[in-house]
Amino acid sequence: MSEADQLARRVADVLLAREGTGPAWGLVIEDALEGYARVRMRLRDDMLNGHKTAHGGMIFALADSAFAYACNSRNEATVAQNATIAFLAPARAGDVLVAEAKELSRAGKNGVYQVSVKTAAGRVVAEFTGFSRTVSGAVL
Amino acid sequence: MSEADQLARRVADVLLAREGTGPAWGLVIEDALEGYARVRMRLRDDMLNGHKTAHGGMIFALADSAFAYACNSRNEATVAQNATIAFLAPARAGDVLVAEAKELSRAGKNGVYQVSVKTAAGRVVAEFTGFSRTVSGAVL
Amino acid sequence: MSEADQLARRVADVLLAREGTGPAWGLVIEDALEGYARVRMRLRDDMLNGHKTAHGGMIFALADSAFAYACNSRNEATVAQNATIAFLAPARAGDVLVAEAKELSRAGKNGVYQVSVKTAAGRVVAEFTGFSRTVSGAVL
Amino acid sequence: MSEADQLARRVADVLLAREGTGPAWGLVIEDALEGYARVRMRLRDDMLNGHKTAHGGMIFALADSAFAYACNSRNEATVAQNATIAFLAPARAGDVLVAEAKELSRAGKNGVYQVSVKTAAGRVVAEFTGFSRTVSGAVL
Repeated sequence: MSEADQLARRVADVLLAREGTGPAWGLVIEDALEGYARVRMRLRDDMLNGHKTAHGGMIFALADSAFAYACNSRNEATVAQNATIAFLAPARAGDVLVAEAKELSRAGKNGVYQVSVKTAAGRVVAEFTGFSRTVSGAVL
Repeated sequence: MSEADQLARRVADVLLAREGTGPAWGLVIEDALEGYARVRMRLRDDMLNGHKTAHGGMIFALADSAFAYACNSRNEATVAQNATIAFLAPARAGDVLVAEAKELSRAGKNGVYQVSVKTAAGRVVAEFTGFSRTVSGAVL
Repeated sequence: MSEADQLARRVADVLLAREGTGPAWGLVIEDALEGYARVRMRLRDDMLNGHKTAHGGMIFALADSAFAYACNSRNEATVAQNATIAFLAPARAGDVLVAEAKELSRAGKNGVYQVSVKTAAGRVVAEFTGFSRTVSGAVL
Repeated sequence: MSEADQLARRVADVLLAREGTGPAWGLVIEDALEGYARVRMRLRDDMLNGHKTAHGGMIFALADSAFAYACNSRNEATVAQNATIAFLAPARAGDVLVAEAKELSRAGKNGVYQVSVKTAAGRVVAEFTGFSRTVSGAVL
């Protein structure tokens, strides 16, 4: 594993440990590399909307977390500016959702990341695009 | 209060009662009218990211909830297709966030809603645009 | 008319005069105020896609122009960072499209604008949300 | 070349021949495969904004065209529902812009496509995500 990928993993682990959300959601980091992250979460009853399917906010939250680990992976503090999500199919209680974030582009302080959210069985649930901005400071 | 607005309020109350998310987040419906909803939530520690500010997923989730109540307000089952959010300023633990959803347009089964997320003091935190699609069935 | 609104109109007129696009498209500025612009364009055959309806790129281009005049209205050079558009109904050759841009929020260098695109008869065609960033320099 | 890819090429060629926009813009199809398209366009003076850089509308229009060829590639009539674009760096008169559209997901009638816009030299200009909906009918 390259030093860049080792750094990425450390950053993701530290971010998760610091945050209130990931632990509260049962979020697990499956992989974190330079410009890349894959996380998963099991859908609980308290993550469902009034139709008894995954609340869009929780699907977004999982994708946004993968995006955060990927865009901070170089240990340069980076924040989300903007994000878009398309909801393609519902998910239900007990489903394990996996969000995989890949870096599409970087230009100056701006970055673009594409995140696919699928069930563990590989059925697509949502596609997310995130736009980041690097600010001053390091994560670690 | 018009019958349409009374119906909107009943739909929102029923949706909130049915869902796992709103009660888990402490979400409160301040107002629900035809094509309109305003909700609030107090930011808890388990809603913060690794920078100790509101996780984008929770800001989105609040806006998405207001959007859901607004786009289902006519008691025609309606789902989110797509949403975009811009994060404009951070929010912190203890802040009360208010999301206000307004209907911009409807055309056939499609609707567009604009949701502003502000602190109770009126400072803007995020702007959200949601695109909905009416499906078959009623909410109530 | 306030000084701020007079300045907005001058900025919009100058931007239109400088650009290659607006004159090529027959774009007309109907109104330009602080944080606001309304423009129109008649759809020509060379603006249609393979279905003989308005090409999404031309609908976007009209909305993006209104957004540009609105977000530069204070004579502080401002650029588009990001934009989202929902296409709600088709438009056809000969239709006059009107794009009306309104400022939703500003926070630091960031701004959010909502642009509705309708036919002159008032039928909604698209809803656009634009995210701007103020850079250094003035327009005039 | 597979039959699916041959069909995709025919669909793209027919769409371009039918439309008013592509020929007016000097758009060239470099490649069109199942779920994929790559197109290019040289930036002319009448495609520039008031800052003398590529108008966002023209960058979007090029990406949207690649998206249209990709999402119609199976000869099932498909329209854009929604699109998001991030502008990452300016482009100037004379630059050749290349837009490459790839299919991310399909679920029922919905599809998601990612389009990168770069200069011929490979410098990224914009990233676009398009959401499509298949309607009834064929293209050819």
